[in-house]
Amino acid sequence: MPVHLAAPSPQSILAVPGVRLGTAMAGIRKAGRRDLTVMTLAPGSRVAAVFTQNRFCAAPVQVCRQHLAGRAAVRALVVNTGNANAGTGETGLADARATCQALAGLLGIAPEQVLPFSTGVIMEPLPVDRIVAGLPAALADLDEAHWAQAAEAIMTTDTVPKAASRQVRIDGRTVTISGISKGAGMIRPNMATMLGFVATDAAIDAALLDALVKEAADRSFNRITIDGDTSTNDSFVLVATGAAGNAPVAQFDSADGAALRDAVIEVAEQLAQAIVRDGEGASKFITVQIEGGRSTAECRLAAYAIAHSPLVKTAFFASDPNLGRILAAVGYAGIADLDQSLIDMYLDDVLVVERGGRHPAYREEDGQRVMKQSEITVRVNLNRGDEQASVWTCDLSLDYVRINADYRS
Amino acid sequence: MPVHLAAPSPQSILAVPGVRLGTAMAGIRKAGRRDLTVMTLAPGSRVAAVFTQNRFCAAPVQVCRQHLAGRAAVRALVVNTGNANAGTGETGLADARATCQALAGLLGIAPEQVLPFSTGVIMEPLPVDRIVAGLPAALADLDEAHWAQAAEAIMTTDTVPKAASRQVRIDGRTVTISGISKGAGMIRPNMATMLGFVATDAAIDAALLDALVKEAADRSFNRITIDGDTSTNDSFVLVATGAAGNAPVAQFDSADGAALRDAVIEVAEQLAQAIVRDGEGASKFITVQIEGGRSTAECRLAAYAIAHSPLVKTAFFASDPNLGRILAAVGYAGIADLDQSLIDMYLDDVLVVERGGRHPAYREEDGQRVMKQSEITVRVNLNRGDEQASVWTCDLSLDYVRINADYRS
Repeated sequence: MPVHLAAPSPQSILAVPGVRLGTAMAGIRKAGRRDLTVMTLAPGSRVAAVFTQNRFCAAPVQVCRQHLAGRAAVRALVVNTGNANAGTGETGLADARATCQALAGLLGIAPEQVLPFSTGVIMEPLPVDRIVAGLPAALADLDEAHWAQAAEAIMTTDTVPKAASRQVRIDGRTVTISGISKGAGMIRPNMATMLGFVATDAAIDAALLDALVKEAADRSFNRITIDGDTSTNDSFVLVATGAAGNAPVAQFDSADGAALRDAVIEVAEQLAQAIVRDGEGASKFITVQIEGGRSTAECRLAAYAIAHSPLVKTAFFASDPNLGRILAAVGYAGIADLDQSLIDMYLDDVLVVERGGRHPAYREEDGQRVMKQSEITVRVNLNRGDEQASVWTCDLSLDYVRINADYRS
Repeated sequence: MPVHLAAPSPQSILAVPGVRLGTAMAGIRKAGRRDLTVMTLAPGSRVAAVFTQNRFCAAPVQVCRQHLAGRAAVRALVVNTGNANAGTGETGLADARATCQALAGLLGIAPEQVLPFSTGVIMEPLPVDRIVAGLPAALADLDEAHWAQAAEAIMTTDTVPKAASRQVRIDGRTVTISGISKGAGMIRPNMATMLGFVATDAAIDAALLDALVKEAADRSFNRITIDGDTSTNDSFVLVATGAAGNAPVAQFDSADGAALRDAVIEVAEQLAQAIVRDGEGASKFITVQIEGGRSTAECRLAAYAIAHSPLVKTAFFASDPNLGRILAAVGYAGIADLDQSLIDMYLDDVLVVERGGRHPAYREEDGQRVMKQSEITVRVNLNRGDEQASVWTCDLSLDYVRINADYRS
């Protein structure tokens, strides 16, 4: 059961002028489900993206990087679920290129103007013939209003489609930011979740769009972890069609720039949190906040050590305030000169540890009360500096193991 | 169910002249179980030890380090289970020292000649009064033949006591090496398992003993991982009583030195492997071997990325040859310039991946056959150098989550 996350209503995801989406049932892995998505972009659209840091990155990620490096104007995205086209060697690259070629042919554009994305099982050959055969149906379905269908068509083990929308006023015009994401396992930053697509009709400078996709990823998808496994396919794409006709945003210092930046980050944050809320087997949504560090980097080390610890995560699942496990994780996080006698720890507002030891007034009942909640904040103060960092994660449940033991069957 | 691991028979654990062990029921956490162990060492014994790298190390670890740094001749070890005395601040340090003081008084030695060890729940006050009250019964039980009882008395979530013995001839004498260990969760190297104690009656130079404890740890306890959680209490102690009367071993280059070194490492290795075989919820024993690396360090990165991946571990639990998850883990291991197109992967003798892609002759049935075994070797060749490293781990099962969700209740 996802934690405080419902499927968005189709009406709640606002159309972005210049972006059309179409889906189809291509039978990639299972029959009778929408598993192929095409997104077309109006001429003049700008696209920026960040991808997985996994060295074993999937074929479509490699092709995306080549196409973006070539500076051809991107006019279409094609996304399949059911197969990740990763660990597929040269054949996989040829399959990803063949998909671009086929879509380009149907749209009358160059193959380099298409970005391919795949998600699903690793190390199985991409059924490229079925994908190519499904493209005409996806194109026939193209519509500015089809965000909700696309959110559903990119799912794998997700139980709920994920989408978010905002509108802001800039340059006297209302501009829209809408996005969808998918991912529930193999989730850890650098980059990020499996797939995230955010589009706006605002016009924005190319360099600023590049900066914004990175900042938005760092503040959203790069702050989540479910199981610490960095996927081979993670991709986050930010599209600006410019259809709103505003004077292109050239800096974030202006009121307009700040409004757009904040709205994009909010959408990305909501999409990233949705992935954790729908984490495989998740029953709790946990914010891990580290304060008082000498650097953001060391705060992140401690936050991820907590967020990745199977012992901490099973304790959350059990609603068991076995909080020494959190201290242990901070201790092995890799902060070389950490002084344990300075550390304070809170569970929501309950002071559990003061100066490295159990606080005398801490009562197990208070810890228990917080642990039973479905949303919990763990706050650790290292008391050695002024920096902070936070990440979002979920618990490790019996269902996580069940889902991942059964995923392919 | 532990993987190919049975409780050792008391007779199979050979006495080590100069070492006596006694256990008692002190009611530390639960009534009616042996939870307190004392080990006394004959005068002239030498002791070397390595401890957890966790910065949040437990009070007894801190006291051990102080006592060893003080160079007083260690004459006794005291071990309690049921409570780790970690995250207990100044009170915890005072409790560990009080335990040493009480045992020293009973034995007529100085408190600095006692090393204390604790294992169990973190962040609860040590019931030092019950421990002190239990010491006389443990001393009354002292016997050179009580290794098996001690192996049982140091257990926490272990399901099987762990012990190993070897005998070798050096300097015309038969010398014995015996050891016990405990640990089943919160297991990841640097250092090592929760607790390991190995003793020999061989005489050995002090400096060489220090080197040997480090080498043995690196080749055994530092090569295992169950859940990637480095404990606050990990300790590995190597005792040489010298009671065999051999000319003290002064180098490992000699035949005698090599025989002793190999036997100590074999015992440590067996004890370390036993911990993985009895890993919480373990149903498979997995050797991860990385070859063809440019350095041992990068081979270890890849080996631990595989061994810690929840997705890989659940696939082993399910006997599902979802082997792309292993490639993904190698990809995110942190080897910056890794070239995926060079990588080969074997499951036992089955070639699964060649040059980064699925091998054309690989058949799912072959992978399935190996995955169903209870002992499996994953071998990855990075094909970029001559170094190698291997680690031992287990799968992530429903029972792992059950055990850790219920541990304190």
